[in-house]
Amino acid sequence: MKNFILASTSTVYGSDYLAYLKDEVADLFQGVSEIVFVPYARPSGVSHDEYTQVANKFFNSIGIKAVGLHSFDNPKEAIANAKGIFTGGGNTFLLLKTLYELDLIEVLRNQILGGTPYLGTSAGSNIAGLNIRTTNDMPIVYPPSFDAMDIIPFNINPHYLDPDPTSKHKGETRETRILEFLTQNDTTVIGIREGNWIRGKGDQLTIEGKLETRIFQTNKDPYEIAPGTDLLKL
Amino acid sequence: MKNFILASTSTVYGSDYLAYLKDEVADLFQGVSEIVFVPYARPSGVSHDEYTQVANKFFNSIGIKAVGLHSFDNPKEAIANAKGIFTGGGNTFLLLKTLYELDLIEVLRNQILGGTPYLGTSAGSNIAGLNIRTTNDMPIVYPPSFDAMDIIPFNINPHYLDPDPTSKHKGETRETRILEFLTQNDTTVIGIREGNWIRGKGDQLTIEGKLETRIFQTNKDPYEIAPGTDLLKL
Repeated sequence: MKNFILASTSTVYGSDYLAYLKDEVADLFQGVSEIVFVPYARPSGVSHDEYTQVANKFFNSIGIKAVGLHSFDNPKEAIANAKGIFTGGGNTFLLLKTLYELDLIEVLRNQILGGTPYLGTSAGSNIAGLNIRTTNDMPIVYPPSFDAMDIIPFNINPHYLDPDPTSKHKGETRETRILEFLTQNDTTVIGIREGNWIRGKGDQLTIEGKLETRIFQTNKDPYEIAPGTDLLKL
Repeated sequence: MKNFILASTSTVYGSDYLAYLKDEVADLFQGVSEIVFVPYARPSGVSHDEYTQVANKFFNSIGIKAVGLHSFDNPKEAIANAKGIFTGGGNTFLLLKTLYELDLIEVLRNQILGGTPYLGTSAGSNIAGLNIRTTNDMPIVYPPSFDAMDIIPFNINPHYLDPDPTSKHKGETRETRILEFLTQNDTTVIGIREGNWIRGKGDQLTIEGKLETRIFQTNKDPYEIAPGTDLLKL
C-alpha cells in the first residue's frame, strides 16, 4: 500500500522548515521512530552533514530521528532497510546524478512502491515523476539520464509560479517554459504552488493543500484543479 | 580576427526585437547582405519558419536577409559558407541537442573562431560558453552532452536577475543557483543583465551596455564590473 507525500516546497513564506506540513508528515510516518534522509540535492551547496541537521531539527520535533544516507557504508542496503525515507530539496540534477552513481534509483523506487512511507520536497518530489525535464533547477552537473523514478505517471513542476504582470524582465515565464516542454513531450505536468502537495495512499492519488493547482497537458489550455482532486482522473 | 556579440536578451522591456542593439548589429555585419539564422531554440515552441520571419523583420530593417538554417538541404555546408550567423534565443537544451544531432558544433565553432561575424542572444549566447550548465532554461530534452562551443573561456548566465527582496516565493534566487554551480565547477560565470552584451573583436573581449555585470568565481564573493571591462583580465 503506497504511502507518500510529494510537496512543492519544504518551507512556505514566513514559516519554519516543514512547519506547514507538520501534521501530514507526522501522519505519514506514524509508528516510525527513525527514517533515512537523502541529502544529495544540497541546497545552496550545503554539506550532507549540515543538511541532515536541518532535517533533524524538524523531525526531532515529532519524535523521529533522521539519519543521513551519506553516513551509511552501504547506502543501497540503508534504503532497502529503511522504515521511512525523506528526500530534501536543492538541485535536482545533482540529486539525480548522485542517485544514479550510487545505483539507488531502483531500490528507492521499490521501497516507495512497496509502501515504505516517503516524503519528497521540491527536488525530492521531482524525482518521483517520469523524468526531471520540468525541474526549475540549474543544470550544474550532467546526469546519465533525465529519467526519474516513475512513482506517479506525471511530471511535477514544484514551486509553481504565476506570471507577474508587472515584471519588466524578458526571461521566459514558468508557463512558457512548461508549454515549450509540451512541444517535445506528451506528458501531463502538475504545476504545484508552494504550500500544496501530492498525496499517494494505496491506490489513491490526490492533490492537497489550500491553493488551486495548475495542470498542463498536450493540446489543451492549462487549467486549474481544486484541493482534493483525484489526479488519476485528469 | 574574431568578431562576435553575445547578448543577454534579444529584447529589452518596452522595445522591439533587437531594437536596442541595432547599431551594434549593423556594425557587426557590416558589408554582409545575407546571414544564416539558427532557429533551433524555438522560443515558446514557435516553428522554424515563424522564428525566421521574426529575425527577418529586424534584419531587413538594416538591409540584410536572414535565411533559416532549417531551409538548407545541407546545414553543415550552409554554416561553412555563411558570411554571417545569428543564433536566436529560446530553449538552450533544444538548441544544443539539435546542433549535436546535425553535427554542427564543430563547423559553427570554426566559423566563429575564423572571424565570421556571429550574433547570439540568450540561448544563442549560452552555447558560446564552455558548457550550458548555467542556463536558466527548462531541460525539456536531453542533449548528448552539456558541453558547448568554448568560444569564450567562461560560462554565461543570460537574463541575469537580481534577487527580489520583497518576494514571498521560496524557489532559489539566480545567485543561489550560480553559487550551487560553483560548488561543482571551477568556471567563471558572467551574469549578464538584460541590455548588456559581450563583444569579441580580434583578441579583445569586453562587456558592453549601460549596466554593471555580475561576476561569479570560485572562492570569491560575487562582484560587479563596469561596461567596457576587459573580460580576459578577470
